Amino acid sequence: MKQQSAETLTITGALGDQARGKILVTDHPQRSLIERLIGLANYPPVEILVAGQRVYTAPDSAGRLLLRDGATLMKLARHPEFQLGELYSNGDLEFEGDIVSLLTAIFQKLPDFSQRPLWIRLLGKLYLLRNNTISRAAHNIHHHYDIGNEFYRLWLDTEAMQYTCAYFPGHDATLEQAQLAKLDHVCRKLDLQPGQTVAEAGCGWGGLARHMARHYGVKVKAYNISREQVAFAREKAAAEGLADRVEYVLDDYRNLQGEFDAFVSVGMLEHVGVKNYPALGQVIRGCLKPEGRALVHSIGRNRPAPMNIWTEKHIFPGAYPPSIGQFCRIFEPNALSVLDVENIRLHYALTLKHWLARFEDNLERVRAMFDERFVRMWRFYLASSAAAFACGELQLFQFVVSHCQNNDVPMTRNFLYRKD
Amino acid sequence: MKQQSAETLTITGALGDQARGKILVTDHPQRSLIERLIGLANYPPVEILVAGQRVYTAPDSAGRLLLRDGATLMKLARHPEFQLGELYSNGDLEFEGDIVSLLTAIFQKLPDFSQRPLWIRLLGKLYLLRNNTISRAAHNIHHHYDIGNEFYRLWLDTEAMQYTCAYFPGHDATLEQAQLAKLDHVCRKLDLQPGQTVAEAGCGWGGLARHMARHYGVKVKAYNISREQVAFAREKAAAEGLADRVEYVLDDYRNLQGEFDAFVSVGMLEHVGVKNYPALGQVIRGCLKPEGRALVHSIGRNRPAPMNIWTEKHIFPGAYPPSIGQFCRIFEPNALSVLDVENIRLHYALTLKHWLARFEDNLERVRAMFDERFVRMWRFYLASSAAAFACGELQLFQFVVSHCQNNDVPMTRNFLYRKD
Repeated sequence: MKQQSAETLTITGALGDQARGKILVTDHPQRSLIERLIGLANYPPVEILVAGQRVYTAPDSAGRLLLRDGATLMKLARHPEFQLGELYSNGDLEFEGDIVSLLTAIFQKLPDFSQRPLWIRLLGKLYLLRNNTISRAAHNIHHHYDIGNEFYRLWLDTEAMQYTCAYFPGHDATLEQAQLAKLDHVCRKLDLQPGQTVAEAGCGWGGLARHMARHYGVKVKAYNISREQVAFAREKAAAEGLADRVEYVLDDYRNLQGEFDAFVSVGMLEHVGVKNYPALGQVIRGCLKPEGRALVHSIGRNRPAPMNIWTEKHIFPGAYPPSIGQFCRIFEPNALSVLDVENIRLHYALTLKHWLARFEDNLERVRAMFDERFVRMWRFYLASSAAAFACGELQLFQFVVSHCQNNDVPMTRNFLYRKD
Repeated sequence: MKQQSAETLTITGALGDQARGKILVTDHPQRSLIERLIGLANYPPVEILVAGQRVYTAPDSAGRLLLRDGATLMKLARHPEFQLGELYSNGDLEFEGDIVSLLTAIFQKLPDFSQRPLWIRLLGKLYLLRNNTISRAAHNIHHHYDIGNEFYRLWLDTEAMQYTCAYFPGHDATLEQAQLAKLDHVCRKLDLQPGQTVAEAGCGWGGLARHMARHYGVKVKAYNISREQVAFAREKAAAEGLADRVEYVLDDYRNLQGEFDAFVSVGMLEHVGVKNYPALGQVIRGCLKPEGRALVHSIGRNRPAPMNIWTEKHIFPGAYPPSIGQFCRIFEPNALSVLDVENIRLHYALTLKHWLARFEDNLERVRAMFDERFVRMWRFYLASSAAAFACGELQLFQFVVSHCQNNDVPMTRNFLYRKD
């Protein structure tokens, strides 16, 4: 009965009873740093070379880490969670072997965040003190999403330009098919009917809004604070004759106005910040008709832990993937009832592998747009994200909710899976 | 696309813009008590009569509350959440009209628990201080489940004797069909394969264990601390030739031993107590093979609130329905990953209506076993529970989880809904 996840399994690597790795040098001047690094990483199944010398090996090695010199080793041992990405971006560290498999193998062995050293946990928690006010949110989103639509167009799907987890009906689905399937999965969960109205918070390049208008006959009001994305989305909607059914609003979701049959947010919650969850819930509660339903799709975690510090600094300032318990702070204070939660993390591992492959296919064009450091940063970001989903460090949750007294909900989920 | 929930809707009553009810007497000696009661209940859409005199009415009234006398009014106004059931059980209060519709109409208007008066909230919280130790749990379970298999047999389904929420494939399904459908829904979510082993915590009269063994070819070890239930379950399994495949263990789930392909618990979590959730998670983590999956099915809430005090005292000592956030205390500390959450509360409203109807059909036999007060207590318990699910005060959650690094999980939920 089970759908075989062959491709996903290949990126997972071996698990379980591996024999422990061992340090190969006895008189290395930095032996204590090597010991510290290996200890923090819980004896990863890789080989490590420093300035060409093999200093650590393990059975079933997934690949090699090549460290330029002793200074590189010192930095990595001091703060591996930040420096792994940093040193790779600078060119002081190389991965030999498939980068996703290698990172997956390393991440699988890492102790749970709660078991990591105190200083690492404190450093991680510092970032939680920041709050995504309306002005900081605008800054954060500008940092990531306004680096150029042309860049994202190189490696996202060509159909709907979705920069969120796809949904693969089968492993042979293309990225384009999987992104369209994701849009349909979301629309079916919302049970959209022709003539209804939808509010969207954080609409990216507007692909979901256009898809809903075109294929489900609804009117959409879609919010986004990325100028580049909204400009792109408006142009597309006009070109496709959808401008009368899709309105893109360049504004914060907290300013959302009106009453709608459905609310949807795909891939925005990561940027909202836990402190603002009750306010997001208030927006949902306030804009949803009594019989409406809402869907929130976001990266999450099995338990609370800070964002990886390197990713937070260089890629996603202000981002945070919540646990299910934290998710509930959106709904619990606002009399919203959770109807359905689905975890599709393996789909995000696959999505990221597709993105990385397309990114690599377009290296020359990326280099021409930016520089080598940018290329290495983004390669590490895409590969380490794929690894984090593949090893179960990150999750992808879709929540469907309604007002708590709404009885006009489907009795079963059959309708989601019925072939039309 | 939506499955019409006609029957459920009829028990829901009208919502929204009802005109407010009004007090009909100006010079009644207990006018201030009436005002207090109506205020606490937020102007319910019912009529209230005290000693035959109509003292309160509301538009779209769902029925009448007949209070014997002024003393009854005083008790009810003092602590309505407890006294509604208490006065009805004693015969001091009668419901005129369909009892489920009437209670649903009252519950729908009640303010959220967090908005109720401080003394009501404090009283409710007192019960949370109790802990279900192994010996107290045994006492609690004995109180409810050991009052006689013959009694439960009168009004539960005849197929599997399920005292938990059924799953109605359609509204015309019988209780028997719906309970078998529930068992299959659970087994499909667990993706059971012939030859596998299953641990069950809190097995009731053993119906799920026998169903799994008979129809899915698995071996089951099922735990329960109710002597009467275990005796019944063992006898049934022997009579049906399943004794070699189902072992019923008269012991607390915390003593569960062994390693299994699946763990399942249907309707036990309500009796576990939030303090013991991490320990339950430890049991799941400890007994589940690396690629196993677990299902926990329980009554829950949209946000934390204490059990209704009357029900806790008379029907379910030590019981507590958790919010999703509280549910997560089972999984988060134990490196378990939530794959799927389904809320099927409307199915429990229907299930309870079926139980109540069968209970009423067997009144004379219940009276012969117990007494009139027992009859009224159980009628109130079944009807008020149906109303609580119908108005969205209670939820029914099914959680499916696995170890956090398990990638051997279905990519989609299609397999749950595929016709074999």
